Amino acid sequence: MAEISDLGEFGLIDRITAGFPLKNESSILGVGDDAAIMNFGEKDVLVTTDLLLEGIHFDLRYVPLKHLGYKSAVVNFSDIYAMGGTPRQITVSLGVSSRFTVEHIDALYEGIRTACEFYGVDLVGGDTSASVTGLVISITCIGDCVKGEEIRRDGAKPTDLICVSGDLGAAFMGLQLLERENRVSADAGKDFTPDFSGKEYILERQLKPEARKDIIEALRAEGIRPTSMMDVSDGLSSELLHICRNSHTGCRVYEDRIPIDYQTALMAEELNMNLITAAMNGGEDYELLFTVPLTEHDRIENIKGVKMIGYITEPQLGCAMITRDGQEFPLKAQGWNAFTGKV
Amino acid sequence: MAEISDLGEFGLIDRITAGFPLKNESSILGVGDDAAIMNFGEKDVLVTTDLLLEGIHFDLRYVPLKHLGYKSAVVNFSDIYAMGGTPRQITVSLGVSSRFTVEHIDALYEGIRTACEFYGVDLVGGDTSASVTGLVISITCIGDCVKGEEIRRDGAKPTDLICVSGDLGAAFMGLQLLERENRVSADAGKDFTPDFSGKEYILERQLKPEARKDIIEALRAEGIRPTSMMDVSDGLSSELLHICRNSHTGCRVYEDRIPIDYQTALMAEELNMNLITAAMNGGEDYELLFTVPLTEHDRIENIKGVKMIGYITEPQLGCAMITRDGQEFPLKAQGWNAFTGKV
Repeated sequence: MAEISDLGEFGLIDRITAGFPLKNESSILGVGDDAAIMNFGEKDVLVTTDLLLEGIHFDLRYVPLKHLGYKSAVVNFSDIYAMGGTPRQITVSLGVSSRFTVEHIDALYEGIRTACEFYGVDLVGGDTSASVTGLVISITCIGDCVKGEEIRRDGAKPTDLICVSGDLGAAFMGLQLLERENRVSADAGKDFTPDFSGKEYILERQLKPEARKDIIEALRAEGIRPTSMMDVSDGLSSELLHICRNSHTGCRVYEDRIPIDYQTALMAEELNMNLITAAMNGGEDYELLFTVPLTEHDRIENIKGVKMIGYITEPQLGCAMITRDGQEFPLKAQGWNAFTGKV
Repeated sequence: MAEISDLGEFGLIDRITAGFPLKNESSILGVGDDAAIMNFGEKDVLVTTDLLLEGIHFDLRYVPLKHLGYKSAVVNFSDIYAMGGTPRQITVSLGVSSRFTVEHIDALYEGIRTACEFYGVDLVGGDTSASVTGLVISITCIGDCVKGEEIRRDGAKPTDLICVSGDLGAAFMGLQLLERENRVSADAGKDFTPDFSGKEYILERQLKPEARKDIIEALRAEGIRPTSMMDVSDGLSSELLHICRNSHTGCRVYEDRIPIDYQTALMAEELNMNLITAAMNGGEDYELLFTVPLTEHDRIENIKGVKMIGYITEPQLGCAMITRDGQEFPLKAQGWNAFTGKV
């Protein structure tokens, strides 16, 4: 095990950046000067940033560092795709307390590197420092988009169809499972081996989420331009309310249209939790939520992995879910709130 | 005093961003969507990022939050100027533990806002979250520069003059003073009032540094294009070694040419510290260190606040300081190292 202080800040930076050659045409100068240099020509530039703190956003007792690195990068890529853009560069700042070794940092960057390679993104900068307590990860992602072609949150119109990719609630159920096994393991001591068989999907959704690059490409291929779009990080209810508030509309979503994987349903039953609440508010799905004009109905049906779950209404109708038995319940944002630590 | 959790993440973001209207032509969409949108046309885009952690980079026992906000923004602007660019946008991510109130966050952003107004920079994004321990500030700054006109670290040539703006070591001495008064205050209890009279300059250099926008403008006005440039954040010795390593050169600097304010000198004497060591290695000066061709000697003399301190040599001569009595000592990077917490 190597001590980080033996390498020093610049030694550590050299070690990290060796595995990150620049590949994007827009990346002109990466790590090693006062700032990175890029050029996007006439394209628009997109910037998003995420701060992840140990004990708030992740728990290293059950999250491997490599997975954490991968996820930290991917959640930022997801925000760029959710604008209709393409992620191109990231900067990674780390605060590292003394219990971390060089091998730990290598594992974290291994995950970041895997994500960057898969999504074609360049590491161009960052900042590395000691931390008094725990691990701090701050990632900023820069992307580009054809000028003026971004898909914002404020363009939804009454009668637009509400669409969502993939399925919801699985990452949340994966987290519940990890937390339960962690508690059981703490009680049982050394001899405990958690049994995750038949639950691989919800674990992967929690530990190794993907950004829906494929959906953006499919929409482009079909010539569909969503009227609004965002990624589902805080939970579907919360994100739908954002779109409706910004677009000055209401909405109706159908309970029986919410896409849910069977592993998510089984886990909710096992834990005696309300499945729809978990799917609507669990968060960390990193699926795309978007609206399209009603006339796109048939073309949306051609896209694998996208489901129409409801429609946009006039604002005075409010935002509601229609249950299986036809009742209407107002949507509430019960999503992840990092200030109370509760979902 | 208002609790942050009462406002919630989005309430807090709304409160913060109300005071930050967008002013730059390149800022198209600010806070409130998955990503900010910018357009820089044919210009190059510069990105730099800094992570500041309580207990490592700042001590709230003697740093007012407003000053901390100002400094956190300015140190990023300094990196963009040090490339020959102009800072245009920042994103600010905060991790805030429960001991902070809304008024604390307001004070921090008041400082950030003052810096943004003075330097003409737009706040376009960020992330706000709870923290288990202490305050975490992560700022990313985006700037622009005429395509290909950036001033990097690798262009210094033998016989180039080495120049530095302002004076050095003052911020370091300001920190020593604050730490001493803080220790005395802790011993003396409530009745203690620190006496900072005659030491205002070194305190201001520590608490409210400025980025040298004026020097960049003066160089442009004189038509001088430095061959290399960086800002002095880790200490002059460390930065000079960076330039020489990246440019494959050596250098000579003259001890008696190092610019030092008299308050810095008085404080060093009072604390029985070596003045030249403090000026060469103290760091946090945020002055500009740059090299120019020898032919620019007379035009550099026209620029107020810039001093020629030495020259670039062939690499085999190494990097050294020439003392007042003509001896040569190799330059060593003894600058701030956040992994050991020592200067």
